[in-house]
Amino acid sequence: MIRQIYNEALTSDVAHHQLKWLCENTEGRISGRPEAAKAVDYTYQEMLNMNLDRVYLQPCMVKAWKRGQPEKAFIISGKQQFEVPVSALGLSIGTGSGGLHAEIIEVYDFEDLKELGREQIEGKIVFFNKPMDPKLINTFAAYGGAAGLRVNGAAEAAKYGAVGVVVRSLTLAKDDFPHTGVMHYEEGVEQIPAVMISTNGADFLSEQIKKEEGLQFYFQTSCYTEADVVSHNVIGEIKGSVYPDQIISIGGHLDAWDNGQGAHDDAGGCVQSMEVLRIFKALGIRPNYTIRAVMFMDEEIAQRGGQKYAEQANANQEKHLMAFEQDRGVLVPRAIAFSAFDPENEKHQNFKALLKPYNIEVIKGGGGVDIGPLKQFYPDIVFGDLITDDQRYFDFHHSGNDSFDQVNKRELQLGAAAIASLIYLIDQYGIN
Amino acid sequence: MIRQIYNEALTSDVAHHQLKWLCENTEGRISGRPEAAKAVDYTYQEMLNMNLDRVYLQPCMVKAWKRGQPEKAFIISGKQQFEVPVSALGLSIGTGSGGLHAEIIEVYDFEDLKELGREQIEGKIVFFNKPMDPKLINTFAAYGGAAGLRVNGAAEAAKYGAVGVVVRSLTLAKDDFPHTGVMHYEEGVEQIPAVMISTNGADFLSEQIKKEEGLQFYFQTSCYTEADVVSHNVIGEIKGSVYPDQIISIGGHLDAWDNGQGAHDDAGGCVQSMEVLRIFKALGIRPNYTIRAVMFMDEEIAQRGGQKYAEQANANQEKHLMAFEQDRGVLVPRAIAFSAFDPENEKHQNFKALLKPYNIEVIKGGGGVDIGPLKQFYPDIVFGDLITDDQRYFDFHHSGNDSFDQVNKRELQLGAAAIASLIYLIDQYGIN
Repeated sequence: MIRQIYNEALTSDVAHHQLKWLCENTEGRISGRPEAAKAVDYTYQEMLNMNLDRVYLQPCMVKAWKRGQPEKAFIISGKQQFEVPVSALGLSIGTGSGGLHAEIIEVYDFEDLKELGREQIEGKIVFFNKPMDPKLINTFAAYGGAAGLRVNGAAEAAKYGAVGVVVRSLTLAKDDFPHTGVMHYEEGVEQIPAVMISTNGADFLSEQIKKEEGLQFYFQTSCYTEADVVSHNVIGEIKGSVYPDQIISIGGHLDAWDNGQGAHDDAGGCVQSMEVLRIFKALGIRPNYTIRAVMFMDEEIAQRGGQKYAEQANANQEKHLMAFEQDRGVLVPRAIAFSAFDPENEKHQNFKALLKPYNIEVIKGGGGVDIGPLKQFYPDIVFGDLITDDQRYFDFHHSGNDSFDQVNKRELQLGAAAIASLIYLIDQYGIN
Repeated sequence: MIRQIYNEALTSDVAHHQLKWLCENTEGRISGRPEAAKAVDYTYQEMLNMNLDRVYLQPCMVKAWKRGQPEKAFIISGKQQFEVPVSALGLSIGTGSGGLHAEIIEVYDFEDLKELGREQIEGKIVFFNKPMDPKLINTFAAYGGAAGLRVNGAAEAAKYGAVGVVVRSLTLAKDDFPHTGVMHYEEGVEQIPAVMISTNGADFLSEQIKKEEGLQFYFQTSCYTEADVVSHNVIGEIKGSVYPDQIISIGGHLDAWDNGQGAHDDAGGCVQSMEVLRIFKALGIRPNYTIRAVMFMDEEIAQRGGQKYAEQANANQEKHLMAFEQDRGVLVPRAIAFSAFDPENEKHQNFKALLKPYNIEVIKGGGGVDIGPLKQFYPDIVFGDLITDDQRYFDFHHSGNDSFDQVNKRELQLGAAAIASLIYLIDQYGIN
């Protein structure tokens, strides 16, 4: 049956076509925007067409952050201006139409702020230029080591009187794509505008700062946050033939940053989730448990879709056995992780052996920000995750480079097949 | 030391710059052409600049097949003509300036030729439309299952009186790049012209053939083979401090098909070979054995460089302990294979454990067409190979899509680090 699952996945163009449609027709689908609503409508309709047992929308209120006009940024050196590519951070306030013009100083991280003190920071723009560490083999670890500057940089710099922040893009690539991502202000600390600069831009800016004392910088952003609006999670399911009230889910998030197509992050996870159901239907698999595909809304900004999904599950007294999340890029799959994995368990050893011919390891792990909230109500839930090869993931992540043409069809197919295979095994043979 | 090797590889742009230079300045470097000579000069000069103990050129005679003018091909349906992308196969004769115009018939493989017989084939163009099997997880196996049509299709079809052959491109992608590759005529069998057609072109052609009985096809190629010319292998080495007369080599091939930049196949393997020496120099490693980087000429057409290298080694009474070849695409490395690997050997288990944190398996395997000839003279030689993730390799292989922008810098670095690490371990601790 695993062989059949792979054959079906590797010879179908359906998921790849869905990915193309989402990328080309709903670019800009950060939560609260019409493009996100279009992505909801599309995936809802796609699942209706699949002849599933149930397809429905789950309303949730989401933040509505708007980027406004394209950003502008310049290094100002005497009469010369050098334009550099920047992108406003999610939830940042804008600079206003006049922009922000001030001296810029470079720091590595928060430690440097302490050392410089208010005296040298006040009234200036702070440039956080800590790169992701290329020496770490795990690129998610490299990301984790620098992402705090994006999230909390504005609040930390504002404590010392900074008027704005520019953060180096979180990628190991050297290119001209400014990345973005969510940031947070701190209660009681002044809110100052925040942007990210491309890595090439950051290197150039750093050189200029070293060359010229008191270098001036200008940036203009017009982003703002409106009142919450309603959006939706999109859910489709095949009813279990033995345990219809027990649910195994697989999900991705439908919203994406508005500076790219969000192909890897995470249209791919969404279409792979639908693909798992499609494969089950195509092969005539009647699962024992109810298998559900969930397209979450608002992962990037406030994770409201994930929270709402968990609350509704609890309110409806649903039983959740297992939840998978696929949000690590549509790259070649290396492993399936699940939290109940036990190397001593003979059944799990069998799962491992069955997936080995497909170059898939089975390991302990699993989880994700969209499925995390389920844990509050289902402390025994098993989490699962597809581990993809992450070496090039941050070349795309949260940038204009996260586009359809950066996804390899076969790697998309192999990921869906791996998830479908493990779900099939667990559905047939149980978890423990 | 392994950590230092990775740090050096992951923070250096040298190999990536070399790859860029080769791709952008020596495109078309099939053996015998001036672009190949330029690639020889460049890599020779790069290694001279590295302050190695010895850098030299090794002359060898190579075939000089020329593509001539760009190919043209049309499906002719009544008064309509549909242009389709084709590429002449290496060593094919041309059609002459008038081109070849005949009825085209579709077959799957050689079995179909037998069934149809001379009666239905004579005077026609044979279209071999066997795709690589997408259901095979190992794409090299899928390639192996269809490559015989490219290599022997013209000879087999000619036995039944065909006047030309069109072969479906060997890739799992559906696109407009016609691939190429070497083919062979058979002694005593008429030589007929052979081209490959892109996969999209093949699908379209197949549809048209089904629609219209007696469909006509036209193609024009002006390729030809000139007298052999001299070219060179390029060799650089760091002398062993304990066993200077015993050699461990790592190599790729410098020639590449002339319809693309040959980034994955195999400029990447060449620059990774030089990078191994650069890393050793940068870290001040004084190897026990002589470590040699070899850039072979003429892998794609007649493997004359590999043969010459082995003959010269024997003539010079060199001792060859181990030879690595890197010619499987510059993709994320998954394993290092070597032919002496023994899972019961404690030393090899230690190698495995040391490379595990870098996501590199150590397995039994190794070999390649350039190093293969060494076996004649050194029956005990150990072969090694970098096993890369092959899922997308044939999207590039032998096509215009094999370009610099399809190589990820970090994956190039990781591959060089893996090879350098295993060579370091073997140099320090021996093979068995």
